[in-house]
Amino acid sequence: MDQRLTMVTLGVRDLKRARAFYEEGLGWTLGGGVEGSVAFYQLGGILLGLYGLEALAEDAQLALPDLRPGQNFGGMALAYNVASPEAVDATLKEAEAAGATLLKPGQKVFWGGYSGYFADPDGHPWEVAHNPFWTLKPDGSVSLEAPE
Amino acid sequence: MDQRLTMVTLGVRDLKRARAFYEEGLGWTLGGGVEGSVAFYQLGGILLGLYGLEALAEDAQLALPDLRPGQNFGGMALAYNVASPEAVDATLKEAEAAGATLLKPGQKVFWGGYSGYFADPDGHPWEVAHNPFWTLKPDGSVSLEAPE
Repeated sequence: MDQRLTMVTLGVRDLKRARAFYEEGLGWTLGGGVEGSVAFYQLGGILLGLYGLEALAEDAQLALPDLRPGQNFGGMALAYNVASPEAVDATLKEAEAAGATLLKPGQKVFWGGYSGYFADPDGHPWEVAHNPFWTLKPDGSVSLEAPE
Repeated sequence: MDQRLTMVTLGVRDLKRARAFYEEGLGWTLGGGVEGSVAFYQLGGILLGLYGLEALAEDAQLALPDLRPGQNFGGMALAYNVASPEAVDATLKEAEAAGATLLKPGQKVFWGGYSGYFADPDGHPWEVAHNPFWTLKPDGSVSLEAPE
């Protein structure tokens, strides 16, 4: 199995609400999908998919998670890195304005960076972080190499 | 917030076991991390991180998920696309040999592709799929454009 990833799929309770968060709230552009059923966004070389939570659980043959918002943390989190601590705060503010729930305000963290967390309308956690030891490239990709 | 993703973090119960699965089992190369605490893998332009489940829950200020393997589905799944139905079966077999749990054997699915699921040692679900309508590029990236 090659060292790569094709898609992250987020199970959602209300596709219309989830699409409104990512498209109208965050300004993302829909790449494709099936109206009312599934939505795909191109994020660099991978995809983010939004798919009904029940359908996803059934597809994976897993038990449906607790449907109360914020109660469905399964131990996976997404991270979005930015160029400065100020950009962390600005991004968390933007996400909140778009309808996200702030889980943790931006703060200095023990590993030497600065980060906070928000949950999207379905409770999926996004860390927003500034990591001064990694390199964010102009195309949006990240590398573990130290910045020049 | 730009349309991109920096990292997917998987909370793990036993970092040594999780690293053995991805590195020895699947043959992935560690990109960096802190010995015994966190491990990062470069997957194209993003990172996969393995981090202690308790530490991740605390970092995100979320309740710790049910620690019984397979009970921590939170509505997020990863997908790994391959070039043919046969490659789906071969990848599922490889993952099982590496210590994964088969959630669903490879099978034809309603949207016209072929897919199955496995769970990694911490229960994180990976779909292994062949989607004849998407383009897998030689560099491992995916595009929603139809294949030529």
